[in-house]
Amino acid sequence: VSLYDVMTAASRLRPVVELTPVVSPKALCETVGRPVALKCENLQRTGSFKVRGALNALMQMPNDQRVRGVITDSSGNFGLGLAWAGKQLAVDVSIVMPKNAPAAKRQRAVELGASVHLSGATLDDRARVTDEIAESSGAVYVSPHDDRDVIAGQGTTAVELVEQTSAAEMILVPVGGGGLIAGVAVVVKERWPEVRVIGVQPSGAADAAHSLELGRRVSERSSHSIAGGLLANLGVKNWAIIQRLVDDIVVVDDIQIVAAVRTLWECARLLVEPSAGIVLAALTSPSVHSRVGSGRAVAILSGGNVDLDDLPWSTDLLSAAALQPAR
Amino acid sequence: VSLYDVMTAASRLRPVVELTPVVSPKALCETVGRPVALKCENLQRTGSFKVRGALNALMQMPNDQRVRGVITDSSGNFGLGLAWAGKQLAVDVSIVMPKNAPAAKRQRAVELGASVHLSGATLDDRARVTDEIAESSGAVYVSPHDDRDVIAGQGTTAVELVEQTSAAEMILVPVGGGGLIAGVAVVVKERWPEVRVIGVQPSGAADAAHSLELGRRVSERSSHSIAGGLLANLGVKNWAIIQRLVDDIVVVDDIQIVAAVRTLWECARLLVEPSAGIVLAALTSPSVHSRVGSGRAVAILSGGNVDLDDLPWSTDLLSAAALQPAR
Repeated sequence: VSLYDVMTAASRLRPVVELTPVVSPKALCETVGRPVALKCENLQRTGSFKVRGALNALMQMPNDQRVRGVITDSSGNFGLGLAWAGKQLAVDVSIVMPKNAPAAKRQRAVELGASVHLSGATLDDRARVTDEIAESSGAVYVSPHDDRDVIAGQGTTAVELVEQTSAAEMILVPVGGGGLIAGVAVVVKERWPEVRVIGVQPSGAADAAHSLELGRRVSERSSHSIAGGLLANLGVKNWAIIQRLVDDIVVVDDIQIVAAVRTLWECARLLVEPSAGIVLAALTSPSVHSRVGSGRAVAILSGGNVDLDDLPWSTDLLSAAALQPAR
Repeated sequence: VSLYDVMTAASRLRPVVELTPVVSPKALCETVGRPVALKCENLQRTGSFKVRGALNALMQMPNDQRVRGVITDSSGNFGLGLAWAGKQLAVDVSIVMPKNAPAAKRQRAVELGASVHLSGATLDDRARVTDEIAESSGAVYVSPHDDRDVIAGQGTTAVELVEQTSAAEMILVPVGGGGLIAGVAVVVKERWPEVRVIGVQPSGAADAAHSLELGRRVSERSSHSIAGGLLANLGVKNWAIIQRLVDDIVVVDDIQIVAAVRTLWECARLLVEPSAGIVLAALTSPSVHSRVGSGRAVAILSGGNVDLDDLPWSTDLLSAAALQPAR
C-alpha cells in the first residue's frame, strides 16, 4: 500500500465521509500534562473510521464482483461501515455475527439493509460459517483489515490529519487487526518523517506488540478486553507494513482504558468507545510512559459507538479498579 | 452592548477559552432534512459557553471590587464557569445553591475552590440569601445573564462562529436569561445582517417568547422543564437587546427536547444537555417548523454537562413519550 493508494482513496472518499474535526481541549492537555491533538473519528459516519476502508473496498471492487454481493465476519464497526457503504452503492451485504452478539448490533445492521447470519462465538467458527456462505452464495469476502483497499481507506484518516494539524513528537493509534495503523503509517512516514508512529493494544489482545518484539507475526490464542473493537488477529498485509513503518506498540490494561474513557468525558466531553479511549490510556499510564515520550501527541479517537445504557464503568471493572493498588 | 464590546471581549478571552469546533454531521443533516452547522460549546471549558461571560465579567471588574470576592446564585453552568474563572484570576467566588441541588454540582464547585452557600429551592429564596451574604461579606454580585460584560462574553461565541462557517438562513440559540442570544444577536446582526436570529425556549419556561409576542418583558410565575439550564427570568438588559435584534422565539416541549438530545447522540455522537439539544428540537418539531424556515441552519450547542448516570431518557419522559399520539 503506497501513499498514492491512500491519496487516491482520500479523493474518492472525501465527498462521502465526514471530514472529522481535530480538537486539542485545554482541560485535557492540562490533565495529561502535555499538548494533545485528537482526530475525532468517533464523529465519523456510522461512528467510526471503519466506514472509510469499507467504502474504499467496495468502490474499488470490479462490477462483476460487486453484483455478487459481499460478506464479512465483523459484527462491530466494520460490519456497520460495510452495511452503510453497501447501501450507498447498492451492493448486497451479508454479515456473520456470533450468536451472542448484542441484539442492538444485529438490528442496526438490518436497518442498514444487511443480511445477518449467525455463527458460534469463536473466531474460528465465524470464519467457517463465513466461508460456507460465501461458497454457497458466491458473495465476495471482504476482510475487516487484511486487505489493501481497506488499509488505504483507513489511511485517509491521516491524509486529513496532516492537513489539519502540525507534526508532533508521536502519533498514537489503536491496533486490532492493524488496518488503521498500517494505513496511517504509510501517510505519516512520508509527510511527517520525524513523527514516531506508536500503536496501542490492550494487554488481553497484544498480538501486534508481541509480533513487533519477536520480529515475526504471532497470534493470541484467546484474546479478551473491554476494547471489543480490538479483538482481531493481526493481518498479514498489515503486519508487513507495521514491521516496516511502526516504531513501537505499547500495551495497557483494561482498567487503564476505562479510566481513560472516563477522563475523555470528564475533561473534554468526548464520549468514545474503549477501543478509542485506549490511545489516551497510553498517555496516562505510568507503565508505558517512558516508551511513549514526553512531547506533543497526536492521537486518533477511532470510534464512538458506546451503548449509553451500558457504559464501561458500569461493569465490574470499576470495583476491580477500587481494589487495585494505586499506580 | 456593542459589537466593539464583544470584539474586545473576544480578544481578551481567546487565549483562555476553547476555540470550539463547528461541525456539520452529514448523517444529522440527512435526518433533519437540511444543512445544519453546530457550534460545539458543549466542548467548551467547564462544559458550556457560560465560562465566557463569567471570565469576561471578572476580567473587566476593577481591582478594588475583585479583592472583595464575587457571589452569584447560579448552581448550574454559570456557577461552574464563575468558579473556574475565579480560580484563574485568584478571585474568591461564592455560589448560592438551593438545598436540593445535586451533590455532584456542589462538589464540582468546591473542587474549583468556590464557597458554597445553601438556600431554599425557590428563585426568590436564592435571591434573598444571595443579597444577605453579599451585604455581610461585601462580595460583588455577578448576574448570570443580566450584565453587560456577561452578555459581551457570551457573544464571543458568535465572533468565532462567523469566522468558522458561512451565513445561513437562520441561527438558533437557546434562551434562558437571555445572555447568550443577546450577545450573539449583537454580532450576527452586524456580520450576517440577512440571517434571522431565532431563540428557542421550553414550553414550561417561555417568558422571552411571551415577552416578544406582547412587546413587553414578562416573567413566568413558575417555570419547569427538563432543560434546567434555561429556568431563569429574562434579564432586563437582555430583553432590551432581544426586543431590538431577535427575529423570533419559538417554543418546544420537553418530549421534543429529549428526542432531540437522543437524535444528536444517535446521528452525530454528540452528547449534550437538554438546554442545548433544544436547538435541534426547533428543527425537528412540526409545531414550529413553518416559523423556523426551511433553509440551512446554524445552531449553538450551548453545553454538554449531562450526568451519564442519569440521562434525560432515563426519566419518566420516555414512557410519557410512548403514550403521546404521533406528531
